[in-house]
This record gives sequence, structure tokens and C-alpha cells, in this order.
Amino acid sequence: MKQGKLFVFSGPSATGKGTICRELLKDPDTWLSVSLTTRAPREGEEHGVHYYFVTREEYDRTVEEDGFLEHAEIYGNCYGTPKRYALEHMAAGEDVILEIEMQGALQIKKAYPEAVLIFVLPPSLKELQNRIRKRGSESEEQIAARMKTTLSEIELLPEYDYFLVNDDLDEAIATARSIMKAEHCKTAGTAQALIDKYKEER
Amino acid sequence: MKQGKLFVFSGPSATGKGTICRELLKDPDTWLSVSLTTRAPREGEEHGVHYYFVTREEYDRTVEEDGFLEHAEIYGNCYGTPKRYALEHMAAGEDVILEIEMQGALQIKKAYPEAVLIFVLPPSLKELQNRIRKRGSESEEQIAARMKTTLSEIELLPEYDYFLVNDDLDEAIATARSIMKAEHCKTAGTAQALIDKYKEER
Repeated sequence: MKQGKLFVFSGPSATGKGTICRELLKDPDTWLSVSLTTRAPREGEEHGVHYYFVTREEYDRTVEEDGFLEHAEIYGNCYGTPKRYALEHMAAGEDVILEIEMQGALQIKKAYPEAVLIFVLPPSLKELQNRIRKRGSESEEQIAARMKTTLSEIELLPEYDYFLVNDDLDEAIATARSIMKAEHCKTAGTAQALIDKYKEER
Repeated sequence: MKQGKLFVFSGPSATGKGTICRELLKDPDTWLSVSLTTRAPREGEEHGVHYYFVTREEYDRTVEEDGFLEHAEIYGNCYGTPKRYALEHMAAGEDVILEIEMQGALQIKKAYPEAVLIFVLPPSLKELQNRIRKRGSESEEQIAARMKTTLSEIELLPEYDYFLVNDDLDEAIATARSIMKAEHCKTAGTAQALIDKYKEER
């Protein structure tokens, strides 16, 4: 039976990771991991859809049980990617998609080297600035600071397996699908099972 | 400028490598390597299309000049994949496609580790036998011997980067395209150039 793989989409903010992941989810045999968090649900957020809302005790217990693929405390709230669901869905043959900030992605790669890390890039910093300006929610100073952060994040590119330039959205989604398809054709880790399959036929 | 890559399609005979490669050639920026050979042209074979027909002296000189990606003598005739054309086309941004027997493919991987080796597999040995039987050109003994060879060739799968099961031809071609596309999104070897590109923008 086909074993699913873990695909981690990460990269600077405002590059369109979320949109790409939501599109990929429409494919069969694809599952999006939902994080645990200790923060309170915001309006419209549903338990099990946007997050699993848990108590600090439940979160701490999961940490102690080594139940996270990655976890972090951000501004006093805790977030984590539960290991069990991801492993179960992969064992059932589904590809697991994670959209996650960059430090979490690198944590996952350390704990789970078979994870495929995909860095979503803007076509250019200029284009990224334009996109953020159009939203109108940030000052020029904030945008300048954000570009600085983005550049330092891009320096982490060598830690990732693939880059994905989100210039044209449809093209980026097609490329993401190509990466996922190609990963399922790698001989690494599967060659012996394939050889055995043909041998058994004899 | 985009650098082309070398994609080597190999595997047991009668798996449809040639058909897949001919289809891939229809894509823009794709070039099929033509081998040098010392054997005489057969009817219908054109110089520069099917082979470059050369003298033994020219062939030996190319060997001495380290001008082959791989070369071999088979039944007294010499064959080789010229290095220069392949490298030129890659430098011009084209993907170079090679359809080659398995020992040649492994030679290339040794000399040129960046080459991407793709092993074309039959859906099953049974299906491969059916295909050969339909051609009607081989005896049952020959088919049995060929299956033995095929199995020993499949044992070389771990030396390859990818496997490609040629069950449905269109699906196999689409998967080959996905592999080629994904290879162009690998950070290995390109991350620093990408980082520099974004830095220069500042």
C-alpha cells in the first residue's frame, strides 16, 4: 500500500502559502494538518478545523509525551503540530500538508528528515511590497522592516528541499503538485519494496 | 539564466523508454542527445538524427580527449554519448534527455553526479511478457531468458534517482514531466544564486 508523505510549506509571510495549500487540499489523498493551540478561539474559528483548542495542561502533556512534530510558544500562547494525526494519515496513504512558520519547519526536518520542505518565495521583494501596500494595513516603515525580515528568512533557503516561486498562482500550484508527484517516484526508501514486488511475481 | 539539466531515461528493454522520450522532446527547451557510433548506418538512418556516424579513429580520439559522458563497445561496434553537445545545450538552458542502456546510465552518474537517472519500469513482468508476445518476434524460451535479465536489471534500481512505471503512457509522460519540473525547483545547487538575486534587489 502507498505510504503518504509529509510536505511542509513554509517561507516569509504574504507569499501565498495558505492559498496554495488550500488548493492542494482539493486533491484526493491529501490532508491538511491542524495545529493545537492554547490560545482562545477567535470569532468564526472552529475546534478541529482551524485549530484544536486545548488547555495548557493538555499542551504540556503532549510535549512530555513527545506528541508534537514541532511546537513553539509565541507571545505567551503555545502552538504545536500533533504527530499522531499526521502519522496516521500518512500510514493510510494520504499526503500530509503543513503550512507552518519557518522555525517550526526546520524543527520538523530535524525530527523527521523524510519531511519534504518547500520554501514559498515571492517573485521579487518589489512585488511582495506591492502586494502588502495594496492591502493598505501597514506603514512604509513596517513594510521596510518586513522586507529586512523577509531577506533574512530567504537566507534559510539551503535548509529547504525545494523552492516555489509564487508569481502566477496556477503555475505555483501546478509546480507544487509536480514536486509532490516526483517525491513519490524517488527510489530512495522504496527501491527494495519495488524489487521485491517484481521478484514475487516470478 | 536558467541552466538545463541532464535527464537519463534507462531501464529494461520493451518498457517504452523511447516513446516517453520522443513525447518529452515536444516540450520547448528540451533536447535529445544523439550518440556517436562506429557502426555503418542502416537504411533510413540519418547522420546527426539517429546517430553521428564516425570512423574508429574519430571515436578513439574522442575517448582520448575525454569527450564522452559514457561509451561502450558492443559486438565490435563502438557507441558513445558526446559530452560537448550535451553541456552546450544545458548551458543554453535546455534540458538534455538521454535514452540509454543501463550500464551507460550508471557510467554517466559516476562522471556527472548531477545527472538525474530515471528508471522506466513495466507495470509488471506479466504485462511485459504480454507486450513482447504480442510483437510475436520472440520464442517462449527467449521471453523467459529476457524476464531473467529484466529482473537482474531491476535490482539496479537503488542506483537510480527515480522510478517511472509505464502502465498508462500519458500518465507516465506526465509523471516524467513532473520529475523534470521538480528537479528545477530543488534548492541544492541553486539556493545561493536565489538568495543573491533577492539581495541584489535591495
